[in-house]
Amino acid sequence: MDFRRVIEANRESYMDELFEVLNQKSISAQNDGIRECAELMMEKLKGSGIGHVELMETEIHPVVYGEYHVSDDAPTILVYGHYDVQPPGPIEEWESPPFEPMIREGRIYARGAGDNKGQIMAQIMAIRTYLEAEGELPVNVKFLIEGEEEIGSVNLDSFVAQHREKLKADLVYTSDGPMLPNGHPYVLLGVRGMLYVELALREADFDNHSGNKGNIVPNPAWKLMDLLHTMRSADGQVLIEGFHDTVKAPTEREMELIEKLPFDLEEVRRNVGHAGIEMTKAEYYRKLCFEPTFNISGFTSGYGGEGAKTIIPKDAKVKIDMRLVMDQDPDVIFELVRDHVAKHAPDVSVKKLGQMSPSRSSADLPFIEPIRKAAEASFGKKTFIQPSMGGSLPDAVWTKVLGTPSVVVPYANVDEANHSPNENLVVEHFYSGIETTCRVIAEMKHIKL
Amino acid sequence: MDFRRVIEANRESYMDELFEVLNQKSISAQNDGIRECAELMMEKLKGSGIGHVELMETEIHPVVYGEYHVSDDAPTILVYGHYDVQPPGPIEEWESPPFEPMIREGRIYARGAGDNKGQIMAQIMAIRTYLEAEGELPVNVKFLIEGEEEIGSVNLDSFVAQHREKLKADLVYTSDGPMLPNGHPYVLLGVRGMLYVELALREADFDNHSGNKGNIVPNPAWKLMDLLHTMRSADGQVLIEGFHDTVKAPTEREMELIEKLPFDLEEVRRNVGHAGIEMTKAEYYRKLCFEPTFNISGFTSGYGGEGAKTIIPKDAKVKIDMRLVMDQDPDVIFELVRDHVAKHAPDVSVKKLGQMSPSRSSADLPFIEPIRKAAEASFGKKTFIQPSMGGSLPDAVWTKVLGTPSVVVPYANVDEANHSPNENLVVEHFYSGIETTCRVIAEMKHIKL
Repeated sequence: MDFRRVIEANRESYMDELFEVLNQKSISAQNDGIRECAELMMEKLKGSGIGHVELMETEIHPVVYGEYHVSDDAPTILVYGHYDVQPPGPIEEWESPPFEPMIREGRIYARGAGDNKGQIMAQIMAIRTYLEAEGELPVNVKFLIEGEEEIGSVNLDSFVAQHREKLKADLVYTSDGPMLPNGHPYVLLGVRGMLYVELALREADFDNHSGNKGNIVPNPAWKLMDLLHTMRSADGQVLIEGFHDTVKAPTEREMELIEKLPFDLEEVRRNVGHAGIEMTKAEYYRKLCFEPTFNISGFTSGYGGEGAKTIIPKDAKVKIDMRLVMDQDPDVIFELVRDHVAKHAPDVSVKKLGQMSPSRSSADLPFIEPIRKAAEASFGKKTFIQPSMGGSLPDAVWTKVLGTPSVVVPYANVDEANHSPNENLVVEHFYSGIETTCRVIAEMKHIKL
Repeated sequence: MDFRRVIEANRESYMDELFEVLNQKSISAQNDGIRECAELMMEKLKGSGIGHVELMETEIHPVVYGEYHVSDDAPTILVYGHYDVQPPGPIEEWESPPFEPMIREGRIYARGAGDNKGQIMAQIMAIRTYLEAEGELPVNVKFLIEGEEEIGSVNLDSFVAQHREKLKADLVYTSDGPMLPNGHPYVLLGVRGMLYVELALREADFDNHSGNKGNIVPNPAWKLMDLLHTMRSADGQVLIEGFHDTVKAPTEREMELIEKLPFDLEEVRRNVGHAGIEMTKAEYYRKLCFEPTFNISGFTSGYGGEGAKTIIPKDAKVKIDMRLVMDQDPDVIFELVRDHVAKHAPDVSVKKLGQMSPSRSSADLPFIEPIRKAAEASFGKKTFIQPSMGGSLPDAVWTKVLGTPSVVVPYANVDEANHSPNENLVVEHFYSGIETTCRVIAEMKHIKL
């Protein structure tokens, strides 16, 4: 199966197809070019040999759905991606116009080059490649390409729940986000979830003079801190009753995977901008993949400018961003937080600003190692498996709503600058991505599910 | 001694003299009109019968000094005030120009009307009144009118220390600040001191992503809160070793004075904008006059805007404003704070942003009650004695540097709007202030020192 030969023969035409898609604006937040882009994606799917293609409406922007059916008995891969993009941001910071793709020094510059058009187009071009090389796919392939990812995938859960039968698959395969530094691919088996809450306390109608009213009117900053100290101990343990109850320890296999992951303490220090970080590889990945956080993203009360202002602030506010691990349920955790606050500081308000479920697919699934090998062979770089990313993505929609294992294999370079000016994708990553997808499809036919 | 008759006979000419002073700009922060105003004040002192008048230089703006000497054996009152004013602020909010005094509805509107030209001119006009009524003063009177009060009285301590002999007195008498609500005068025997520090911690070079770096890089907000919780218990006790060691309990006489002070819980609640305040009169004044504060004027770390931002903030900062009571020394307390931080969180920086010593004159001094009666008779309103104000003024310069008891008897209405647009002084307060000073002078001759 000489996928690479087919890819080399089609380098220019594949790039032309990608450029055509990058040329088409599709800013979901501004509803700019969305439908035109959805129709273009349908064309690309059809043109690549996907027999059944349809536009499926949601309450906001349509989903592009495609299906290549081989046999009811064959394994099924569901490829997920999105055709919408972020707004371009400060236009004067772009070196070339965001919707006029341009190659400079081996990189494609355009809004969406990495996130996600370059990656989803690599998947589509992989079908074309596979068919040209082999004449037929060995497994069923479904495509779900949504238009609302950059506005929070607001309808994805309900869409998937509604079309569970149609979307049925053995594996959900996503290429999004950046690879490891130095162009090393990795296979991500999950994500941490998230619960974001704001606790606020308004104590007085206005700021009071700290001298003339000092000791008379209570200080909301102290009250909020006192509350926070009932929620977390000085050594960092979360004290909210039940918070840890459902936290799962890593499996032996997961710890083995971590042992194989790269780790360079100096790199970590640079990466976080803190020269004093001390931790071992095992600690690093355990803290990142298997332990929840209870982070303060912001605490504000009173005067924060230069010099002295002598007030008792009228209010105080803290934003807490919790990253959740398996099997913490954000709805349950929110109830625990609310109950805790109600018990310890009933006048503090609790507002939920966002949530996402944690998600993880088993490291023991038979296709994990073949997928790792496919990426390693295609990119020509040592490839790793990480049980979870530290951040959060809507992955539970696959593992929980659809009930299907899911892996994320990013094709974009680590410095893709997604969501920023001068977003880019290394040209060779586009082609290596195509090859990776071809190899994954080829491997899937061997898998006993 | 019919001071009131003399005042009534001179209403217009006294007001003309005040208007002349209000007409003269004297913004110390901008060095605008300062020397002209100082010279005008000298004229006013001379014109009121003060025999010896001189301009005494400091490193910034000169002090106007005046002395009326009766006898080496007579008691001496040192009248303190200031001729400089705040900048006018947003000029469009003034209903009449700040340096063109105007009377509307029984109030004089001008920058400095209350703070402090109207009050210091009442003292000067009192000398003129007394001399017209009696031909001679019964006690020695000295005037120290500084030009740096609105920039923090930066040279007052050293000036007083340098001229201790010349300034020697039995009582320092100041009229500054507002009276109690509803036009009730009061005699203030002291002030709380202040120590203002900023604790800051910079943990990383930049804000980190709370997902991808969560649990890896420490959060400075937590660290600072953990430190703060070693400094103050959840029930509000300051835990810094030695902080309370020099705090003096109120005397029996001071508690008696408090018993006589007005207290209206509803008024307190309105005044602080907090309907839930619960306290007795004794608690209120004890907390305000005799207990230090450990107040957070500002805590800032990370994101404080609308919605969710998912970061681990790079730094955190807290501004702590401590009001100190007798005999807490701000220099000593600063050392205690610095040592405490060095012990518990050595990477947190400690910066001093301001300090002032607490000061209190004995409630047992023989002239306190006569002064109270003088104000009560002149203003025709029940008059109180408060052992200390909750706020801070440079009063220790008298009680500690000069070693002389000091009282503050404000003549300005509670809504004088000092430091704000439309600063004003109730016309009748000017005249009642003149009468109060005359009566205080008259009483002082009876005092056995």
